[in-house]
Amino acid sequence: MAVNKLKIIPLGGLGEVGKNMTAIEYGRNVLLIDAGGMFPEADMYGVDLVIPDYTHYLAEKKNWIRGIIVTHGHEDHIGAFPYLLQTIQPPIYATRLTLGLIDVKLRKHGMDGVSTQHVIAPGEQFNIGGLFDIEAFHVCHSIPDAVGFAIRTPAGLIVHSGDFKFDYTPAWGPPPDFGKLAQLGSEGVLLLMADSTNAANPGFTPSEKTVTEGLAQVFREAPGRIIIATFASLISRVQQIIDAAATHKRVVAIDGRSLIESVDRAQELGYLDIPSGVLVELQTLKKYPDDKVVIIATGSQGESSAALGRMAAGQHRQISIKEGDTVVLSSRVIPGNESEVNRAVNRLFQRGANVVLGHGTNVHVSGHASQEELKLLMHLIKPQYFIPIHGELQHLHAHARLALSQGIPSEHIKVMENGMVAEINGQGFEVTERIPGSYLFVDGHGVGDIGKVVLRDREILSQNGFVLAVVHINRENGQVTIRPEIITRGFIYIRERGDLITKAEKVVMKALPAKKPYEAVRKALADFVYAETGRSPMILPVIIED
Amino acid sequence: MAVNKLKIIPLGGLGEVGKNMTAIEYGRNVLLIDAGGMFPEADMYGVDLVIPDYTHYLAEKKNWIRGIIVTHGHEDHIGAFPYLLQTIQPPIYATRLTLGLIDVKLRKHGMDGVSTQHVIAPGEQFNIGGLFDIEAFHVCHSIPDAVGFAIRTPAGLIVHSGDFKFDYTPAWGPPPDFGKLAQLGSEGVLLLMADSTNAANPGFTPSEKTVTEGLAQVFREAPGRIIIATFASLISRVQQIIDAAATHKRVVAIDGRSLIESVDRAQELGYLDIPSGVLVELQTLKKYPDDKVVIIATGSQGESSAALGRMAAGQHRQISIKEGDTVVLSSRVIPGNESEVNRAVNRLFQRGANVVLGHGTNVHVSGHASQEELKLLMHLIKPQYFIPIHGELQHLHAHARLALSQGIPSEHIKVMENGMVAEINGQGFEVTERIPGSYLFVDGHGVGDIGKVVLRDREILSQNGFVLAVVHINRENGQVTIRPEIITRGFIYIRERGDLITKAEKVVMKALPAKKPYEAVRKALADFVYAETGRSPMILPVIIED
Repeated sequence: MAVNKLKIIPLGGLGEVGKNMTAIEYGRNVLLIDAGGMFPEADMYGVDLVIPDYTHYLAEKKNWIRGIIVTHGHEDHIGAFPYLLQTIQPPIYATRLTLGLIDVKLRKHGMDGVSTQHVIAPGEQFNIGGLFDIEAFHVCHSIPDAVGFAIRTPAGLIVHSGDFKFDYTPAWGPPPDFGKLAQLGSEGVLLLMADSTNAANPGFTPSEKTVTEGLAQVFREAPGRIIIATFASLISRVQQIIDAAATHKRVVAIDGRSLIESVDRAQELGYLDIPSGVLVELQTLKKYPDDKVVIIATGSQGESSAALGRMAAGQHRQISIKEGDTVVLSSRVIPGNESEVNRAVNRLFQRGANVVLGHGTNVHVSGHASQEELKLLMHLIKPQYFIPIHGELQHLHAHARLALSQGIPSEHIKVMENGMVAEINGQGFEVTERIPGSYLFVDGHGVGDIGKVVLRDREILSQNGFVLAVVHINRENGQVTIRPEIITRGFIYIRERGDLITKAEKVVMKALPAKKPYEAVRKALADFVYAETGRSPMILPVIIED
Repeated sequence: MAVNKLKIIPLGGLGEVGKNMTAIEYGRNVLLIDAGGMFPEADMYGVDLVIPDYTHYLAEKKNWIRGIIVTHGHEDHIGAFPYLLQTIQPPIYATRLTLGLIDVKLRKHGMDGVSTQHVIAPGEQFNIGGLFDIEAFHVCHSIPDAVGFAIRTPAGLIVHSGDFKFDYTPAWGPPPDFGKLAQLGSEGVLLLMADSTNAANPGFTPSEKTVTEGLAQVFREAPGRIIIATFASLISRVQQIIDAAATHKRVVAIDGRSLIESVDRAQELGYLDIPSGVLVELQTLKKYPDDKVVIIATGSQGESSAALGRMAAGQHRQISIKEGDTVVLSSRVIPGNESEVNRAVNRLFQRGANVVLGHGTNVHVSGHASQEELKLLMHLIKPQYFIPIHGELQHLHAHARLALSQGIPSEHIKVMENGMVAEINGQGFEVTERIPGSYLFVDGHGVGDIGKVVLRDREILSQNGFVLAVVHINRENGQVTIRPEIITRGFIYIRERGDLITKAEKVVMKALPAKKPYEAVRKALADFVYAETGRSPMILPVIIED
């Protein structure tokens, strides 16, 4: 029998590599890991969600896909399931909470039940497609039930860390399973793929325990209501807040749809331990004195439509921020959201609240391993080959340098980009090809139906709007028949610049007749508008031949 | 004679208070401080520059303005001069470099010479309008020739810190003039207005000297070219880089228009000391071996059109990034620019460069005082009243808490917002009114000619583009006469959705005849488009009556 090649293909993640999806291929067998989505970047105008562009890969390998294993229930690891399952329906293997959160998503899209689902637990072994022998192992991360995977293939053992940190005093579950990791290391690991998010951070990431202490301080000092914004997926943070509230005899209300949904689901599945009487409805808060109240709210990224954003803007139906309120941002600021968060924080101060920020206080810690933890993982696993994943290129390079400093030879380390294919065979470890595509845009109901041209038009429109000229010309001689109609949107405050419209009409009439009336009008108007205003709106002539 | 009131009015700054302009009013005399501009925030679509909205204030007080004093030459303190001087032409008082940088701006707008300019120097006293006795004092900041002001008014002495930090080993000029500050303190200070930018940061801001050391390390270790991105206004950083280059026998080329302009001006005015032979033209760099080359480039915020952005994107005419290049970001990331910076950094790594980031290394330090320095200033000045300025509300509140902790009574501290008017009179210190307006948008040649409606339209267009329907109807019976024409931009990749256009035409025809054809078509199309795509583009019917 010919020896098959083992291929590793990170398939998506916006700037991050292998974050949203990774494929492992051996012969005619493909194992997928994760199916996540990302929030769009600032210049992805109007895009709702960015998902990995698996279309090229799946088109070719559709029939080889044996299953998908999922590391944990964060959006960037499960957000693409409703879209992926429209194309393929592989069996899904995930822990109980992760499957529960995938189900919430699928139900929203009316797609629950389209794939078989298998509940896995750390320590349990299972086989996929008769070829991949897989064992999930417990890792500590900022969501319960997160796992890494030991994947035994005919070519050797792959260890995939998932998102993780080494937390000796986690907020949920046991500390890391060093015994299991060391055992895998002794077995002999062909390839380690590990989380690079914080690979540029020296030292250790603080334990979730420090957040317990940070929150305790807030609870001791807050004179009135406490409003805490956090991510909907940070279930263990919700538990920490509920525990602090119970200790300080405060009631807790949840505000914001995504938080309510994930708290409901986590509670239903037994991942939240809520003492009776602590959780109350938002509407009933008026019954309690301010210093007995906690609100856990969405909007930690300053989103104006989320609960905290509406409070900051004075547009929340039930909650008016007032003197004495303490607002806590128990979350990191996702890069790109800094201005929105700042604006919300300033507005909260303006309304009299005191705001405690995650940055520099102990009300938030990262869920990802820093350099010392990453080194420890390398020494436990002792891999032959290493691929840094889950990070932007700058983080992968930092992680690669770290691996080099720990004695992994540089030719055994590959910094990959999404779509690159790494091959391990008898001859060694190399990047052999690059398949097209890195991500797809989801906008409204559409997936992949907007691309560069549409985004470029949106950008032009966002900067200077448009100027539309409805021009009637005589079919015979190309002369303008009636006064052109100039319509603008997003261009200028036109009521104060009526002169501009009158002049533009004359410019259009002067440009005609012409051989190519559309082009002539477009150019004449563009030149005129730029000379008058210094702006370049989209110019759109509509030529009507009468 | 009646005792006049002293009024303090911060007049602009986007989120920041009194950053771009402050007015001090006594009787019928107004003294302005600074005239800066700000970069627009993400949702200020197409806005080029944001300047303080002084229009309401000036409309009333135009004839009372005696002069404008300027703290330093950074964009956010001088960027609005070309616009302000279109409305009023007060005499300008600033140090030599600051005036030089204002002149660069005014020349570009063909406005040099419209106001009289007075060169001032630290320690010099001058009088404005016969009423304000002013003395500039030297402060350390990230630009040479920065000053604070002691302003003697009939109501008492005001000390305005400007932007500052207490740097014992600055990159340019002497250390802080503690003697002068202490002397002002002994004289008795009515009001201190002080820089709050870093008021939330504990400890001391590191000295510029640490950057000298950080750069030295980069120069020792870089195997090939060194490319350093920094702000055009960071003249002392340019000096530090030139010094390091001279020491390591490297030549330096400047890349990027704004950097070239400000280096030229600073050199002309004697603020840069460049050993002969060190500065060379970008075009001549090929002549030198890579390890003898330094490029100082614009683009520290990841802007795709600036020098570094073009290098990162592989679109720079002269410089191709390659293995062995070391890129240094000697700058902070302005909030809101994180994604662009990240993208540029990742692209540079992708092309083989090593990138050294300001964050966590010693290649950049802040130019603003941290908490211990702010406390020291308070103890030197011992003011009766205190107004924190130059910061967002969150920073002003942090600064106010700091003042309170140092024994300034809370009723002597006012956290103000732009447009608020603080009054000091025999009775005390209070905020009495709020005047309208906080900032104006500059877009192309226009100032203040776009507002909420235009920005709202740009936002809608940026998210989903537009759908235009040209509909011919019969003047008599309102029937559609010919097939409607549907035009879209920024909406969907229309080549793949021709079906949508055909259906939309039918929807339009079905909606007519109607009493209000415009409204009927708009609504029918909006409903149809949303149902089909989940998107809400701008819908624009053009009804033509034949």
